[in-house]
Amino acid sequence: MTVGKRKRLRSEMGSSTADRIVVRGHDLVEDLIGKVSLGDMAFLELKGRLPSRQESAVFNALAVTLVEHGMTPSAIAARLTHYGAPESLQGAVAAGLLGVGDRFGGSVEEAARTLQEALAGSDTGRPNLEELARQVIAAHKEKKRPIAGIGHPVHKPIDPRTPKLFAIAAENGFSGRFVQLMQAISAEAERAYGKELPVNATGAIGAIASELEIPWRVSRGLAVMARAIGLVAHLQEELDEPLAAEIWSRIEEESSSR
Amino acid sequence: MTVGKRKRLRSEMGSSTADRIVVRGHDLVEDLIGKVSLGDMAFLELKGRLPSRQESAVFNALAVTLVEHGMTPSAIAARLTHYGAPESLQGAVAAGLLGVGDRFGGSVEEAARTLQEALAGSDTGRPNLEELARQVIAAHKEKKRPIAGIGHPVHKPIDPRTPKLFAIAAENGFSGRFVQLMQAISAEAERAYGKELPVNATGAIGAIASELEIPWRVSRGLAVMARAIGLVAHLQEELDEPLAAEIWSRIEEESSSR
Amino acid sequence: MTVGKRKRLRSEMGSSTADRIVVRGHDLVEDLIGKVSLGDMAFLELKGRLPSRQESAVFNALAVTLVEHGMTPSAIAARLTHYGAPESLQGAVAAGLLGVGDRFGGSVEEAARTLQEALAGSDTGRPNLEELARQVIAAHKEKKRPIAGIGHPVHKPIDPRTPKLFAIAAENGFSGRFVQLMQAISAEAERAYGKELPVNATGAIGAIASELEIPWRVSRGLAVMARAIGLVAHLQEELDEPLAAEIWSRIEEESSSR
Amino acid sequence: MTVGKRKRLRSEMGSSTADRIVVRGHDLVEDLIGKVSLGDMAFLELKGRLPSRQESAVFNALAVTLVEHGMTPSAIAARLTHYGAPESLQGAVAAGLLGVGDRFGGSVEEAARTLQEALAGSDTGRPNLEELARQVIAAHKEKKRPIAGIGHPVHKPIDPRTPKLFAIAAENGFSGRFVQLMQAISAEAERAYGKELPVNATGAIGAIASELEIPWRVSRGLAVMARAIGLVAHLQEELDEPLAAEIWSRIEEESSSR
Repeated sequence: MTVGKRKRLRSEMGSSTADRIVVRGHDLVEDLIGKVSLGDMAFLELKGRLPSRQESAVFNALAVTLVEHGMTPSAIAARLTHYGAPESLQGAVAAGLLGVGDRFGGSVEEAARTLQEALAGSDTGRPNLEELARQVIAAHKEKKRPIAGIGHPVHKPIDPRTPKLFAIAAENGFSGRFVQLMQAISAEAERAYGKELPVNATGAIGAIASELEIPWRVSRGLAVMARAIGLVAHLQEELDEPLAAEIWSRIEEESSSR
Repeated sequence: MTVGKRKRLRSEMGSSTADRIVVRGHDLVEDLIGKVSLGDMAFLELKGRLPSRQESAVFNALAVTLVEHGMTPSAIAARLTHYGAPESLQGAVAAGLLGVGDRFGGSVEEAARTLQEALAGSDTGRPNLEELARQVIAAHKEKKRPIAGIGHPVHKPIDPRTPKLFAIAAENGFSGRFVQLMQAISAEAERAYGKELPVNATGAIGAIASELEIPWRVSRGLAVMARAIGLVAHLQEELDEPLAAEIWSRIEEESSSR
Repeated sequence: MTVGKRKRLRSEMGSSTADRIVVRGHDLVEDLIGKVSLGDMAFLELKGRLPSRQESAVFNALAVTLVEHGMTPSAIAARLTHYGAPESLQGAVAAGLLGVGDRFGGSVEEAARTLQEALAGSDTGRPNLEELARQVIAAHKEKKRPIAGIGHPVHKPIDPRTPKLFAIAAENGFSGRFVQLMQAISAEAERAYGKELPVNATGAIGAIASELEIPWRVSRGLAVMARAIGLVAHLQEELDEPLAAEIWSRIEEESSSR
Repeated sequence: MTVGKRKRLRSEMGSSTADRIVVRGHDLVEDLIGKVSLGDMAFLELKGRLPSRQESAVFNALAVTLVEHGMTPSAIAARLTHYGAPESLQGAVAAGLLGVGDRFGGSVEEAARTLQEALAGSDTGRPNLEELARQVIAAHKEKKRPIAGIGHPVHKPIDPRTPKLFAIAAENGFSGRFVQLMQAISAEAERAYGKELPVNATGAIGAIASELEIPWRVSRGLAVMARAIGLVAHLQEELDEPLAAEIWSRIEEESSSR
């Protein structure tokens, strides 16, 4: 094993010595514990620096929106897993997080990707957002793919989270081109498809995360970290008032009866 | 399938209608987004109510302490998993969380359990903490089990997080019997074993979580939710500066050479 | 990084060169592919040698028994996870396996552990099995723990898998002290508790796995590897005839209605 | 909860009554345990019927090929996870399986998909395989995507598993259009790119799985079920000769030193 020719393993995340713990360049004990909130710590982890007051407001709003969605497939999977493996709370949370994929968390990622790629490809400082929006819709139509971030099966006519999130972004100076492009995509899509397709919560989150310069590849992680909190809380409720055995017995009975 | 005889499936976590989303009894849009931070949202999820200013300070301090520990086995596992399955960020985070078990997150749980069981078993309002501490140590000695929450292989003579966390708890009125018992266990253990065994960070967290009336069965979840944040950040670094292939090739080469 | 003082990373599992792949000391292409079955390959992986005809019969019987159990919590969790993350079949299988814990796979482990520890502690070549069985029952009574491997909520009066597995073990020369002790524990428990407590399938599997000298710490792995097969098959059915959305909508509707 | 309007939850996987367990329409005790091997049980699970002798030979050969690949990222992740959570063998296996994604197991899926889609789109009973192969290569070139199933970084000039697997398929009557198309793709790609691009093991497995009429969406599952066996065996070795702590300490030391 010749280390000389090897790539050096480096990480800027954190390190420890006997009397000091450093996280992202900050002394954990002196500068972080008791001084920053969990949401600001998450910002520090992702961005390598602490947020401004405005960034903190916007980032925490995004994260808070993603924590809890009631009895989702993910929460049910976590409860059923805990039933079989009560020794491993982390296993039940992990099972729940595994469902935060293309259908759920993926929609934030997809919205962020659409926006970031459209604006990265724009070769001018002042892109024509309506034109970009039409290109996005045409590209999705050609591939017969749905456009992430608009429309909602339940929250009609509008997703109540969207105006709130956009208002918080605007108040704090984060209502820039990504938010505007997301809104333009919604407007153009409504024209193209002839139905109401307002920006939904994942579209708003994808746009605002882009304003915060969170890369789209990481944006799904916002949902993952927030849902981890929600899943721990679901498991606490499951410990107190177990539902898993009842869910299991109903499904097994129905599926195995002739 | 006769629902009448069935246990009703109830959950207090959250629910939605077309224009309203409720989380733990609070209107998500009106009362939470933009008004509470991520850490306070986590408190709400676990406790069913928003924290006081003091509770918020203490709870956020605990959570912040648990987010990042550098290149742990858990972080390395997440990075290696991402290498094989780049399509699934959630899978890589889940893989990392699966290592937050008995050895790591479990120590918080074990410390909280020891304290909560000792004080629950105490039949008086003003228990003799020194006596309880001696009983705890005797019980662990008999079962030949290490005592969770004291001593540390790296942070010597003391774990710098402990005095900080205990100070924040005291400032905010959460330095009660659980914290005192944890300290008494440390003192008695030092006497019994004749070596320095100060309270470590997991002991402090287990004690303070108990002060916040978080059940010990859930306390491991504090580590799980905080580490989910850290793992997303490690994966962001891995996306930018991949280490997994180098780690793999070194290990494979060494382990398969004769 | 000074390798000299380091523990050498060694593994006997497998290695590759440009023209040769070696698994557990066997040339994969020359000696295994096309010559051994999947079950025998699993035996080789665990034992480091190929099975005799008798060992193969017994080992495959154990594994086959563990593959499929219908709509278990584990299978439902896998299907719900796939619904949220269709991009990651491996994530859905992993979610399902996470439920193969103390309640399910753990019972095989617990039965094997009980038998292996009882017979390891026996200081004579010809232990008195009735006496050991009484000691096992007394120890469980004292700790108020149920005895793994006996009784069954559904399969009454007997679990039909048990006589079959014991017959296959006997025909192939693997009905030794572990099987006899398992049967003695059942007989003594029926006497002690005054009710029918026949050896169930997990008790039979734990005993026979012990006859095959599979360490109890690994015996849960038999369930894990077999269930991975069953979970892939459940996901195939889910792809063809999805149930997850229906399961979700029923649970969500019931749990969020007032 | 009105079941009448609801989709009925049905599954053909398995069911139990007090004295009988049915798996895929077969009596588990009477017809499967002691009569079929684990590999044939896996075939039954996936196909709904037991294999012919020829199908068994081919299917087991595929599965055996996928069980063990030495110290892969997946195996290392499983070992590191076990270090942190020794209470949960299933969690460590799950962590390992989570790495069987697009880069590894996904290549089998991608090869199978390419073949199945190319031949499904062919509107004639006797497609021109050379022409289809050219179309496949052109489509991949246009999207700038690598072609799954050909070439190998280590096994040169040829992957030794490929001729073995193709020979077993041919001996058993499963060397049909999928295998021929895979070989045609290799030949055309070598012409188009001017270098050696022989069919590799994942290409052979993808092609032969297609001959067995395993849908491409499920083909990744072959790798997942086989790797579950390998991961249990790696964890057994880890229990006997732990490597995780050494791997961790090396990486942490190097990554945190300045």
